[in-house]
Amino acid sequence: MRTIDIMGKNAKQASRQLAVAGEKKNEALRAIAEALIKNTELIMQANSVDLENGEKNGLSASLIDRLRLDEKRIKGIADGVLEVAALPDPIGTVISGSTRPNGLEITKVRVPIGVIGMIFESRPNVTVDAAVLCLKSGNAVILRGGKEAISSNKCLASIMQDALEKAGLDRNSIQLIEDTSRQSSIELMELTEYLDVLIPRGGKGLIRAVVENAKVPVIETGAGNCHVYVDDSADINMAADIIYNAKTSRPSVCNAIETILVHEAVAEKALPVIKARLDEKNVELHGCEKTAAILGSSVIPADESDWETEYLDYKLAVRVVSSLDEAIAHITKYSTGHSECIVTGSYKNAKIFTSSIDSAAVYVNASTRFTDGGMFGLGAEIGISTQKLHARGPMGLNELTSMKFIIEGDGQIR
Amino acid sequence: MRTIDIMGKNAKQASRQLAVAGEKKNEALRAIAEALIKNTELIMQANSVDLENGEKNGLSASLIDRLRLDEKRIKGIADGVLEVAALPDPIGTVISGSTRPNGLEITKVRVPIGVIGMIFESRPNVTVDAAVLCLKSGNAVILRGGKEAISSNKCLASIMQDALEKAGLDRNSIQLIEDTSRQSSIELMELTEYLDVLIPRGGKGLIRAVVENAKVPVIETGAGNCHVYVDDSADINMAADIIYNAKTSRPSVCNAIETILVHEAVAEKALPVIKARLDEKNVELHGCEKTAAILGSSVIPADESDWETEYLDYKLAVRVVSSLDEAIAHITKYSTGHSECIVTGSYKNAKIFTSSIDSAAVYVNASTRFTDGGMFGLGAEIGISTQKLHARGPMGLNELTSMKFIIEGDGQIR
Repeated sequence: MRTIDIMGKNAKQASRQLAVAGEKKNEALRAIAEALIKNTELIMQANSVDLENGEKNGLSASLIDRLRLDEKRIKGIADGVLEVAALPDPIGTVISGSTRPNGLEITKVRVPIGVIGMIFESRPNVTVDAAVLCLKSGNAVILRGGKEAISSNKCLASIMQDALEKAGLDRNSIQLIEDTSRQSSIELMELTEYLDVLIPRGGKGLIRAVVENAKVPVIETGAGNCHVYVDDSADINMAADIIYNAKTSRPSVCNAIETILVHEAVAEKALPVIKARLDEKNVELHGCEKTAAILGSSVIPADESDWETEYLDYKLAVRVVSSLDEAIAHITKYSTGHSECIVTGSYKNAKIFTSSIDSAAVYVNASTRFTDGGMFGLGAEIGISTQKLHARGPMGLNELTSMKFIIEGDGQIR
Repeated sequence: MRTIDIMGKNAKQASRQLAVAGEKKNEALRAIAEALIKNTELIMQANSVDLENGEKNGLSASLIDRLRLDEKRIKGIADGVLEVAALPDPIGTVISGSTRPNGLEITKVRVPIGVIGMIFESRPNVTVDAAVLCLKSGNAVILRGGKEAISSNKCLASIMQDALEKAGLDRNSIQLIEDTSRQSSIELMELTEYLDVLIPRGGKGLIRAVVENAKVPVIETGAGNCHVYVDDSADINMAADIIYNAKTSRPSVCNAIETILVHEAVAEKALPVIKARLDEKNVELHGCEKTAAILGSSVIPADESDWETEYLDYKLAVRVVSSLDEAIAHITKYSTGHSECIVTGSYKNAKIFTSSIDSAAVYVNASTRFTDGGMFGLGAEIGISTQKLHARGPMGLNELTSMKFIIEGDGQIR
């Protein structure tokens, strides 16, 4: 039997206990938070191995920074675990119910999904964040992190497993694949016998590889080619504020914008105001011909690839459009279905935009940066789904659950 | 461009109109019902071609019967369409909403999935049933029916398309793949660019082929290795009634039972009563050694394959178990996660069973034959999902939808 099959089997078994574990899950979460703090030194030691290897292998400074765990960050991770412990338990929630004319009482209740696989990249905090959300929602999890963080991940996983045991739960509720070869990742994607769903979390390349190769069901997350459309009735200063915030407050995240569309009737007035704000952060503009005609030679000529690109950087594509319809058509063609915004003073145009745009989050007069489980009031999130089945947008605890029907009778037959 | 790509593109375009079509969808449904009645003769002519071919190709009498469309059945199909028209429109339903501390108003609303693919086998009524549920829920559909019914299906699809046009909707909202080769089916399973989900409806072979080959997301339906467990505290006559009903009222459907588990403390008393009922329909019993010891030589010795088999016939596997736990372990090992029942007088055992059994529908003291959208009060169903993501159990209109977040602000930034 392959290691992955043993892990799958053990996860399935642990998931049965977890499904009915109730308050024990919170005890385990609190034990995990405590153990993380208590083992801060140990974690930092394990992390230093990853940092050394990272420097040896020439990782960029920003990647090294994402990899780093210090006392403050470990405290932050532990606090996050306590926040999850404090959230209401989704399992057992009655979603709906009815008594049928024949007297059958039908109740639809929330249950765990079962066994969740997570594939992610370098940040070791994801190991804990993902594991505790799965635990809280009653699911066993098999984690497959990136090789850059393997020493930290092994340490974190082992601390969590000990804490699970301390709380009387199966330590196989949280398992880490220690082999970081490509093969181990493929094996997880094909583990149809044991895995109920696989959630990739990371860059476009990782997500594409998972979607293309997985034989288990996948929830696609993260790709965000997001847009702001500035309507002819827009408050131009509001538009500039929103664009500045959505582009520059954190360019590397999926809810940052990549293209703005500006109605031609306001382009001459709005574009210089917008550019002035973006210049504060030296944002590079890739514009259409009309944009260049208004803003001058600093604009890099945009082509098809600019409309398609998720820059994740201080770069922004700009296109002047002749109508709301043209803006909607552009977004429909190029969006990844994550978050889009209209800045408008027109009630009618706001309604047309929100009903026509087919994305997880559609904004009127607010920054796309709000697409986030915490900001939406859903609690911690495990990712942002850009697909339409099962979950769309920020995925909180409810999105890590399934449901079942319980039907109670006194001998009814059909 | 391949035919399937053109169909996909046209479906995607039609889906945008459908997403905001509102009451026009009901006008189209009523036009479809009317056209089906008006064209009864035409449909029966087209159907007679399939029937002749079926006889020529030696289809069994029961398959021929499933294929047949007569005046009464066509009326039945049309009535079904009118019932769907009368259901509330799921699209635009506000699922939840809140105003955040920063004043952002967040609303989660139901939207269509987009483009749905359906692969199904011989019964031509599925062509209409599936198409109208997709239409009502605002989705474009691409249908791929079996070759046995292709003449009927072409006629029905063309009648529906004309009715769509009459109601002012895009005729590509409902499309039928006329090529019934294996290749066309594979092409549909790989149509990732246009298809949002694929729902196979049919026998085990079809569903397995789709799950294994599809690159688009799939909702698995139908496989039902269902169980009744007779607890030591069961009312034995109730158990016999439920088993008789769940096995014999329609053995060919997925919510019929295939195995019963009987607690050893009541086996000697219960098994003869159960057998007497089943003998009325000559149900063949495949039993464990203890069953044979009680019921005698008419019992065919059961082996592993009997616990795994979905007979879909007048056959039933019987196993005597020593405890509730053993029954739960058996079901956990062999069930396809469709429907299971406990017959019990014990409150505690009922609770243990409903919380431990991980199936879409878990019954106490009622026949598994109730697992059905209509019986559950969900309206018409497109199938019964046996997977845990997106939809589980009978899939009605809501299960054919997705959702999006609409976020309204007055300039909020993060």
